[in-house]
Amino acid sequence: MIQCPRGTRDFLPDEMEKRRFYENVLRNVAKTFGFREISTPIFEESELFILRSGPNVLSELYAFKDKGDRSIALRPEMTAPAIRMFVNEMSNEPKPIKIFYFGQCFRYERPQSGRYREFFQFGAELIGNANAETDAEIIAMAASMIRALGLKEYKIRIGHIGVLRQRLTDIGVPKDRMAEILQKLDKKLYEEAEPLLRSMNVAKEDIVSIFKLTETVGGKEVLDSIPGDAGDYLRSITDILAAMGVNDIEIDLGVVRGLDYYTGIVFEAEAPSLGAEKQICGGGSYSLSELFGGEKVFSTGFAIGFDRILLAMEKEGQVFKNEGIKAYVVPASEDMKLGASKVVAMLRENGIISDIDIMGRKMGKAMKYASVARAEYVVIVGMQESEQDAVTVRDMVSGEQTLVKIDNLVKFIMN
Amino acid sequence: MIQCPRGTRDFLPDEMEKRRFYENVLRNVAKTFGFREISTPIFEESELFILRSGPNVLSELYAFKDKGDRSIALRPEMTAPAIRMFVNEMSNEPKPIKIFYFGQCFRYERPQSGRYREFFQFGAELIGNANAETDAEIIAMAASMIRALGLKEYKIRIGHIGVLRQRLTDIGVPKDRMAEILQKLDKKLYEEAEPLLRSMNVAKEDIVSIFKLTETVGGKEVLDSIPGDAGDYLRSITDILAAMGVNDIEIDLGVVRGLDYYTGIVFEAEAPSLGAEKQICGGGSYSLSELFGGEKVFSTGFAIGFDRILLAMEKEGQVFKNEGIKAYVVPASEDMKLGASKVVAMLRENGIISDIDIMGRKMGKAMKYASVARAEYVVIVGMQESEQDAVTVRDMVSGEQTLVKIDNLVKFIMN
Repeated sequence: MIQCPRGTRDFLPDEMEKRRFYENVLRNVAKTFGFREISTPIFEESELFILRSGPNVLSELYAFKDKGDRSIALRPEMTAPAIRMFVNEMSNEPKPIKIFYFGQCFRYERPQSGRYREFFQFGAELIGNANAETDAEIIAMAASMIRALGLKEYKIRIGHIGVLRQRLTDIGVPKDRMAEILQKLDKKLYEEAEPLLRSMNVAKEDIVSIFKLTETVGGKEVLDSIPGDAGDYLRSITDILAAMGVNDIEIDLGVVRGLDYYTGIVFEAEAPSLGAEKQICGGGSYSLSELFGGEKVFSTGFAIGFDRILLAMEKEGQVFKNEGIKAYVVPASEDMKLGASKVVAMLRENGIISDIDIMGRKMGKAMKYASVARAEYVVIVGMQESEQDAVTVRDMVSGEQTLVKIDNLVKFIMN
Repeated sequence: MIQCPRGTRDFLPDEMEKRRFYENVLRNVAKTFGFREISTPIFEESELFILRSGPNVLSELYAFKDKGDRSIALRPEMTAPAIRMFVNEMSNEPKPIKIFYFGQCFRYERPQSGRYREFFQFGAELIGNANAETDAEIIAMAASMIRALGLKEYKIRIGHIGVLRQRLTDIGVPKDRMAEILQKLDKKLYEEAEPLLRSMNVAKEDIVSIFKLTETVGGKEVLDSIPGDAGDYLRSITDILAAMGVNDIEIDLGVVRGLDYYTGIVFEAEAPSLGAEKQICGGGSYSLSELFGGEKVFSTGFAIGFDRILLAMEKEGQVFKNEGIKAYVVPASEDMKLGASKVVAMLRENGIISDIDIMGRKMGKAMKYASVARAEYVVIVGMQESEQDAVTVRDMVSGEQTLVKIDNLVKFIMN
C-alpha cells in the first residue's frame, strides 16, 4: 500500500470539518480588522527564500530543478512570497496594505509532535509604516485570533530587537557577527554566548549588562528600565493595546527571533500546554521589500502555526462538534425511488444537507445507516403517503414519526 | 525583481475574495448533497500517479527526489490521492463514502489561456457502488454546482465507455491496444483510427459501425439504438436525473476520456464561451482502489476546473462585487487616538469589518482614503463628541453626518 509521504497528513472528513471551521474563525477575525486575503504559488524561485534567510535555508527546503532547469522550492513560509507579490503588483496602491493568507508550507526536517514537513500557516502583513499604531494593530489581531479560537492558556511576549542590536553595536559586536550572537541569546545559551563575546573583546561588565537586558521581563513597570526611546515606544504600543482591550501581554526583551530582517518589535505567543514546542505564533516589524528589488517599505507581520494551535486547543480539552446530515431520504419500495429522488432534490435546493440511499438498503438497514451518519431526520417516501402528497418524517433523536405534506417538508425540517 | 514562477499566479485581494466566494458556493452544494471535505498532501510518491496513469505521466509531472532520495511528485490531480486515502484509512467505514476536495494541482505543460502549471480543482468521489443511483447522484451534483455558480451557457454530455470497450473487443481489438484506439476516438481522429483498426484485421463494416456508435448523440430518443444493457442503464440515469430536476443533459457516446480506469459512464461539461479549451468538468465511474493495494471498490467521481469555470463566467459577463470595509475610524486629533482605538475594537468585537487610520492622516486625506477603501461609513472620534460619549458617523454614499452615542454605534452601523 502506498502511504502519504513522511511528515505529511491526510485529513479525513471529521478532522477537515474542524480545520475549515477554525480556519474561518481566523479568516473572519482578519476581515473584521480590515485585512484582505491573498494567495501566492505553492512554489517559488529558490532565490526568494535565500534572499530572505541566507543560503543555509536550502538545507531545509524542498528545493529542486524543474524541467526548464529553474531552481524552485516549495515555500517554507509566506512572508517572502507576500512581500514579493507586494513589490511586483501592489507597491503603487495607497498605504497601508493589509493582507493575510492561509495555506500549506513545507520544511524538510525530522517530523515530531506538532512539527510536520507539510504544515499550515495563517499569517498577515501590514505594509506601509513603522510606528506604534502599526505594531499594535498586528499584535491586537494576533491576540483576537487566539481568543477567538477559544484557547484558554497562552502568553504573548513582546520584545524589541532594535534595542538589542543597538546595545550589541555599542559594546563592540561587529555587524557581520550580530546574527550569531542573537541566535545564542534567543535560546538563552549564555554560556555559549560569553566566550564568543569575549573573543570580540567585549568587556566583562558589558557582557553582564547585555545578558541582564535580555532578562528584562514583566508588565509596564519594566518599561522604564529599557534604554533609549524603545521604552517609550513600547509604552505607546501597550497603551494602544490596552485601549483595544488587549491586556494579557508581557514585555520580554529576551524575545529575539532568528531572522536578520526584523527591525523593531518582535513578539511571540506560546501555549504552555504544548511543552517544549510551545510557540504558536511569532512576528515582528521588518523591512524586506528592498531585498526583492522594491523600494524600502516597513511592515509588521506575524504567522500562526495552525497545526500547533489546534493541538494546543485539543490538549486543553476543547471539543469540536461535527455537523452530520439533516435529512436522510429513503424510498419505502423500489417504485418509490424516483419519488425519493424528487424529495431529496427539493431539500437540497433549499440548502438542507440531505442524502438519499444509493445502496438499495431495506428500511431497517437504512435506519441503521442514518443513525451512523448522524442524520437528524429520516424522510420515508412511501406509496400510501405519496397518494396524499406527503412523506413520513422520523425524528432520529425522539424516535417520533410525523406525516408531513411535501409542501411543508422544508419548513418542518428547518423548524 | 523576482517574479512568480512561469504558469503560476498571485491572487490579489479583489480576485481572491471572488475565488473564495465561488469556492464556498461549490463547497455548500457538495455539503447539501451529503458530501464531506477531505484534504491530502500537495505531493505524493510518484508511484501513485504512475499506477493511475502509466509511466508516461512522469513527463508532465513536477517530479523530484527529496533529501531522503524518495521519488515524489506534486499532485497533478486529486482522484488518486483521495482513493489512496480511502484505501489506507476509510475502507472499513460504511458505504457509500461521499467525499470532496478543493486545492492546487500541478502540471508541467505550456501555459495558455485557462491552462496553468499551478491550477485549482474542485472534485468529488462517491465510493462504494456501481449503479445508476450512484452515477445520477454525481452528475446531479456537477449540474447543481454549475448552476449555483451562475454559468448560463453549458452542456453536459454523458457517454458510456463500457459500451465502446465491449464493441471494440467484439470486433477483435486486443486489450493491450484498446487505449490507443480510444484516444483516437476521443479526439474524433477517424482517419488515424481507421488504418490502426485495419492493421488489427478489423472488418471494414465493423470499423464503420464503431465510428457510427461514437456519433450517437442526442436526447432520450437515441437510447434505443445503444446495444446491450447500456441503453437501459443510461435510461435509468436520465430518469433519476429528471426526477431531480436535471434535464439539461445530452447522451453522447463520443465522450471517451483518456484514462484506462473508467469502467462505465463517463461525462463532461463544457462552456462554449471558452472556445477550444472549453471543458470545465469531467468524470465517470471507475475502479482504482485495487491498484493501490485495496479491495476492488467501484466509484463515480468528477472534477471541476475551477480556473476555467471562473473564466467562462467572466466571459459571459458575470460580475463579482467586492465587499469593502464597513467602518473607517479616524481620530479627529492626536489626543483622540486611544479613543479611536477603543471604538474600532468595539466594532470588531461585534463582527463589523472596520479599519483605523495608522498613517497619521489628516481628516481630509483620511476621507479620501476611506473612499478608495470603499468604506461605507467613516466614524470620526472627536473631543466634543467624546464628551457626550458619542462619535460623528458619516455615510459615505449620502454624505450625511449623524451624531451617534457610542452605545448605539454597533446598531447604527449594522442598520
